This record gives sequence, C-alpha cells and structure tokens, in this order.
Amino acid sequence: MRDLKNNLPDSKHEMNDKKNVSPGDWVVLTTHSGDTFQGTLMPRYASMDKKHVVLKLKSGYNLGIASSKVMSVCKSDYNLESAANSAESAKPRLQKRKENIQSAPKIALIGTGGTIASKVDYRTGGVSAALSASEIYNAVPELRKYASIDADFMFNEYSENLEPHHWTQISNRIAEKVRSRVYRGIVVSHGTDTMHYTAAALSFALHNLPIPVVLVGSQRSSDRPSSDGALNLIGATIFSIESPYNGVFIAMHGSTSDDFISCHLGTRVRKNHTSRRDAFESIDRLPIATVNNGVVKIQSQFVKMDIPKRPNNYDASGSEGLENNFEVESKFDPRVTLLKYYPGLDPNLIAYAVKTGCRAIVLEGTGLGHVGRKFFPQIAKAIKSGVLIFMTSQCIWGRTNMKVYDTGRDLIELGVVPLEDMTPETAVAKAMWVIANSHDSVEAVSMMERNIANEISSTSPVNRRMLNYEED
Amino acid sequence: MRDLKNNLPDSKHEMNDKKNVSPGDWVVLTTHSGDTFQGTLMPRYASMDKKHVVLKLKSGYNLGIASSKVMSVCKSDYNLESAANSAESAKPRLQKRKENIQSAPKIALIGTGGTIASKVDYRTGGVSAALSASEIYNAVPELRKYASIDADFMFNEYSENLEPHHWTQISNRIAEKVRSRVYRGIVVSHGTDTMHYTAAALSFALHNLPIPVVLVGSQRSSDRPSSDGALNLIGATIFSIESPYNGVFIAMHGSTSDDFISCHLGTRVRKNHTSRRDAFESIDRLPIATVNNGVVKIQSQFVKMDIPKRPNNYDASGSEGLENNFEVESKFDPRVTLLKYYPGLDPNLIAYAVKTGCRAIVLEGTGLGHVGRKFFPQIAKAIKSGVLIFMTSQCIWGRTNMKVYDTGRDLIELGVVPLEDMTPETAVAKAMWVIANSHDSVEAVSMMERNIANEISSTSPVNRRMLNYEED
Repeated sequence: MRDLKNNLPDSKHEMNDKKNVSPGDWVVLTTHSGDTFQGTLMPRYASMDKKHVVLKLKSGYNLGIASSKVMSVCKSDYNLESAANSAESAKPRLQKRKENIQSAPKIALIGTGGTIASKVDYRTGGVSAALSASEIYNAVPELRKYASIDADFMFNEYSENLEPHHWTQISNRIAEKVRSRVYRGIVVSHGTDTMHYTAAALSFALHNLPIPVVLVGSQRSSDRPSSDGALNLIGATIFSIESPYNGVFIAMHGSTSDDFISCHLGTRVRKNHTSRRDAFESIDRLPIATVNNGVVKIQSQFVKMDIPKRPNNYDASGSEGLENNFEVESKFDPRVTLLKYYPGLDPNLIAYAVKTGCRAIVLEGTGLGHVGRKFFPQIAKAIKSGVLIFMTSQCIWGRTNMKVYDTGRDLIELGVVPLEDMTPETAVAKAMWVIANSHDSVEAVSMMERNIANEISSTSPVNRRMLNYEED
Repeated sequence: MRDLKNNLPDSKHEMNDKKNVSPGDWVVLTTHSGDTFQGTLMPRYASMDKKHVVLKLKSGYNLGIASSKVMSVCKSDYNLESAANSAESAKPRLQKRKENIQSAPKIALIGTGGTIASKVDYRTGGVSAALSASEIYNAVPELRKYASIDADFMFNEYSENLEPHHWTQISNRIAEKVRSRVYRGIVVSHGTDTMHYTAAALSFALHNLPIPVVLVGSQRSSDRPSSDGALNLIGATIFSIESPYNGVFIAMHGSTSDDFISCHLGTRVRKNHTSRRDAFESIDRLPIATVNNGVVKIQSQFVKMDIPKRPNNYDASGSEGLENNFEVESKFDPRVTLLKYYPGLDPNLIAYAVKTGCRAIVLEGTGLGHVGRKFFPQIAKAIKSGVLIFMTSQCIWGRTNMKVYDTGRDLIELGVVPLEDMTPETAVAKAMWVIANSHDSVEAVSMMERNIANEISSTSPVNRRMLNYEED
C-alpha cells in the first residue's frame, strides 16, 4: 500500500488533530516512516493500551500502530480496493506492487494441513488441493508488505493423523529448502492438535539450521469471523524473516485479542487449551519473542541463552556459508510408549509394551516423577531386557526430581532415567529420534540426558504467572 | 490467646499512633473484636497490600490482619510463652485454654500419609506410627484457636501408591465420622501426588455430605523451613468449619507466599507443578474460596452455582437431620484404562486393554478430543465388545467439542462418548466409580454424561489468566 502515499489529502494532518476523524470512519493512516494503511478507525479497546491507534483492515483483522509512529490519520472516501480495480490506475499500481514483492525477503511456506490461508475449513472436505502464492496473498493481502512467498503444498492432513514418518518427510522437505539457499526463513503451516509434537521432532532432526523454521496454525478456521489464522501467518512470516535466532519455533496468538503473536521454542511449548486462540504456551519460561504490530521483540531472559544466533548480515544466498554445518537426521523410530500414571494403572502394560517390541517407555509420573511401587517389578524386568525407561511429570510445569523421596530414589536405582524439565510430549518425540539415531543403549541414554535443542533447561523456571505476558 | 487481653498495657493505644512500634519489635496486637496476638511486627511485604498489618508469630509463620480490624499495636516485653510456662500463672491459664478447645468446633483429621504435622519427613522412614491431637497442636499451635481436633491415623502411604481400594477405605472412614454427628468438618491429610484423583473419587462416593470434607497436603516437608504444611492445615481446618458449602474440596497454598489458601472443588482441581507450593489449580474456573488471615471468602461466581449449601445454623450434633440423606457408594472398579494419545501410539493397546478385561477406556485425546484415524478400527471393535470409550483432552484447559471436525464426528459415530470439560484425572476416577455402581452400559454412559459433583460445568470457562487470583 506504500504506493498510495501520494494520494493522501493532507500528509501533514497531525494525529492529535482529530477534528475530522472519529471511530467508525474509513481513514488513511500515514506513519512517519512513510507507510500508509487504510481501514476503519476502531474505538480503543480496553485490552489495548492508549498508545496505539487501531484500524480494522479490509482483511477483517485489526492492526494496532504505536501512536508515536503515526504521522496523520485522515478521513477518506477513497477505497483502495476499488481504485486498484479501476482500469486506468491498475497497471502502474500493479507494476509497483510486483516490485515490492520482488524486493521483499523470500520465504518458503510448507503446507501440511493448517487451515491458514484456506477459504474453506479444510476439515470439512471443501479443500483446494494446492496452496499457491497468489491464493495466500488474496487471503492475507498484508503479507505482501513483508515477504515474497514460495508456497509448497506437501499434504493436507488433520494433525492428529500425523505420525513419526510425517516428521521425517517434513524434515527432509525443510532440508531441501534450506539447501536451496534461497530463503530467509521457512514457515510450516500445521494443524494445531499435534503441532508441538512436530515442533519438538523437527528441533531434533534439523541441526545447525542457518535460518529459522516457524510452525504456525489456526485455532479457528478462516471462514469464521474469529479466525486467528491471518495474524498468526503474518507473525510467523515476520519472525522467520527477522528472528535473530535460528532453530524451530511455534508462532501463535499470545492473547485472546488480535494483538500480538508469541513465538515459542519448539521443544518447550504445549497446546494448553482446546479452543482459545492463545492455546499454545511456553512451559516453564516466557515465549522467546513476541511480534506486535510487525515488530519482533526478544524476551530479555533469552538474550544470554545458548540459542544459535543468525548473523545480522546473514544473506539468504548463503554467502555466509552457515548452511555448511547444517545437518539432517530425520529418522524416527515409533517404538516408544508413553504411559501416563494414575491410581489403578495396570503394571502389565509395561510387560505388554516390552513384548510388542517397544524400545523405550516414557513414563508420565506424578509429582516430582513417581509411580506406585507395584510397578517396580515390571520396570526392573523391562530394563533388564534392554528397554529404556524415562521419567517425566504429568504436572506439566516444574522439574522432575527423583532424589527427594524414596520412590524416586528407588526408581533411579532400578535404572529409570529422569528427564529434568522436559515435557512428556517433547520426551516422546526425542526418544523416537534417539532410538533411531543411536548405536546402543548407552549412547541413547546419554543423548536423552543431554540438552540438544533447549528441551532441558538448566536455569530456574520462570514464574508461570508471567507466562505469555509481554515484558515491559 | 484471648485470655491475655487484660494484660495489655494500653488497649486504647491507636494503630495509627506508631511512635512506639517499628518493624522488628515484639508487639501485642489487639483487634476491635477483642482478639489479641503476640509476634514480631514485620515490614510490609511487596506482596501484601497496604491494608494489612503482618506479625511473625512464634510458630514461625506470618499472620496478616486487616488494618481496619486492628484496635491497637503495642510494643511489649511480655512474652506469652514464658508467661505460660511460669509456675504461678500456668494453672489458670491452661485451664482457660482447655475451655477454649472444648468450646471450639470439633473436626476430624484423617491421616493417610501427608507430611503435615509430622516433625520428620515421613518418606525418609523416620515416621511416628500415630498422629495424636497433642502432636498436631505442638506442631501447629495456632490450630487451637480454631478447632478441637480428633486425629485418626488411617495409614501412612506415599500417595503414588494409593489405589482405588484406598479410595473405598477412606470413603468408608469419612462416612463413619459423618454418621457420628460429632464433627463440624472433616480434614483428610494426603500426599499431594495423587490428591486430586482421591478428591475426585470421594466426590462421587459421598452423596449429600452434611459437612465439608477438605483434603490437604504439603509440597514441602515440615522439617524444611519453607514448609507450607502449617498454613495449609490451618486453612483446611478453617474452611472445614466455616465453609457455607458441603462437598469434597482440596485446600492448598494459593500463591508462593505464605499468604492465602485456595479451596478447590474436588472434581475440578489438578496438581499443575512438581514443586511449587501453589501447585494445585482449579481447572477452567476460580477456586471456590480463599482463606486469608483466618477469613473465608467465597468467589462470587459460585454464589449462584448448584453446590450443596450448609445451613448457617447447622449443628454438628445432627439436629438438622441433614445426614439422613447422606449416602455412601464407595466401590471402585479399577478396570479402567487411561490412554494419552500421541503421534505413534500403537492402536493395539486398545485391543490389549479389551483382552485383559478392561471395562472402560478414557482417551486423553488431542485438541477438542481427537485421535488419529488409524485408531478407528480398534475403537469400533472395543465398543462392539461392550467396552465404553470416553473422550477427554490432554490440553488440560478447555472443553472437548467433537462436533467441529470430521475426526470428532466420526468418533461419536463409532460410539465414543465426549466428557465435556471433565479433566482426564477426574474422568478416570469417575469411570471406576460408575463401572462399580451401575447395572449396565446404558446406565454407565448416562452416569458419565450426567454432572454429579461439578465435574462437568455448563457455564463458560473462566479466563484462565485469572485463575488462583483472589477476587476484589
């Protein structure tokens, strides 16, 4: 929309001169940096601070712009869409747009089944078999501002149907994109149900990523007015371009309002609500970053952390040679059983898992990492037969500690390996990856205990009351 | 400590006259209602509002008293404890205390293994085999103020070792206490690991309770300075006496500070942190009440809810006849399997459960209540063979909704029964109870779908950001 700048009736019209504009008006907003936006001026929401002007864009979602960045807001009868469609002005305008897209950073968008950018809920069956760049721009026109997108439709699957072999496929496809040296970032659209399992899996399969991989989904399908898809896709795209970190991330709504996106480390995130737009939460830490009005803000606690950084001058053409260290280990062995403990659980389930060829069992124990003592004989037997048994906690938050109570000490004595503060979901994905990529039990255990992709934290957990809130 | 009232140097000394008192002083505080407390005057904590005066009591924990209730605070050299021990004053004083205890409401404390009131961590082995009233008063002297306690040591078990048959035993013991018509409330001390499973189980086993049953535990053992046991026990005791509601509740720290206790409905609570003192959280709603400085405050959202109320004038002797409707159905059938879904889970686990005599399976599905379609054949087979299959969500927060997507609709078509916003932990306990107390599958399903003890809510879920915060 930059090309509309010169059409503004009065670009000097100051923001605090509100004589002519009031909520509900169709306005043209110009920023000090020269960007212009058209939309309906919204009343200030209770949830927004007073330092933002909010426009309802034609695409239906709200854009909040810091007041300090606003040069002018003018009432306008001028309609961008009709102007773009008028025969006489269309040609030069479209030419300009094309130039914008060509100069914007290139990203790859890999489709695996998210509802994002589809006009119809893909789950109802009314799905187009391909996701083209033009379809995406039509659905979320705002994206043109930020990126030139190469869309790659891999498959279209409900995420509850994804299996470890899909993780292998997605890893390999990402590797192709990375090695093409064309992209500044990769966005993977994905159903939300198991997106955190996939994010963890990719975190282990892709080593030394030279660019970020950002998974994104939508809690509400895009044919519903409350869809979060557009804002999530914009946030994921911006983060994939501007993230100072490399690695695998999930970008989703950070609140129930359409205001900011939270970006989570792929190994420390969980879908914690069945339906809310901010269902995804970082566990035991803040999200690594937020994207608010197009601006990426890194949470200060991560600044000193050991997360691979992308040089400021990194060039997608690969002149930095970063991708020389890039490696893919995309095999996953599904012979891993997750058992959530509860009073009355049958210990014979462990014997059954062993009998059917299971290579590792991830226990989701109670509290600090416990199971009842009636499990001890079966656990001892399984370990003796070569099956690895790992301990996580069903509490979700906090760290296992098996040295506090007799139960924990006894389990360690039997050979159960505690996984610190790894989530059970990440532990399952990691165990499947470790089993497929280790030579023997000793190596497998050592890989499980070693922090590979921030799945184990050595720092004290962050106050969870702060989770998902932006830092000031 | 009421008996010290007349020993105050100057009971008219106004609170706002602070000439003579400063933080760190040993003071005597007198309230407008005539209660007096001795302790060290504490500086106001950041976490406390400015409307409270905080005393560090001899027992080591902090007591916060609303400033509006304080009549006077006077510096004092007078030491309650040494006075009580001095030979000449001891006799009449002790006589007075005894009277206080006799006039205080009677509660029953059933010990099942909590660390509360034990001087040594029971898990290390150094445990006394009985929990007498005098031992409890010695450990938590403050309790004398509130209740006369009959302690009943049932067993001393790590809660991860508790099985459904323990739920039966505890239910029956509670029923005995209730029928004795002696108690105004019942407190059950319990290990925290599976306390929420037991709370849910008791909620179904005990119908029309004429008095509240409050489960309480400790996240830190009482030999550690950071123990939360004393405050939890005091909070649980006060709530069991003063709760306007009947039913089964859990009372635990509401924050990481030793300030207030949150009381949760027994069917809507979960241990959500491995180690924090405020590990227990109500799911999808606020805690039903808080206990702050001895004062029970009911959350307003519950005022209109269908929770059984206790008449204000209820008399423990049973003159109200409320316990005539009291019923116990304490049988639990452990032949229930909880399966948490994840990518790569083996569908044959369902066949195994059926083969080994399982009567019901609770699925902990993804998102709104989904499992991969490769599970459909085994699910269909299990249902045909008479096994009941119920759906909950591993998201923890939010409600299942199996009518949004094909997967959910297909599962309903197969006969899977969605359990609304019931937590998986409550669903397991309920299914074990339903299987043991129903005549056939039709009755069992109808019992599972019916809200019996607030395990299913019909109201919209509360903003979870508000959870565990006190209302103003």
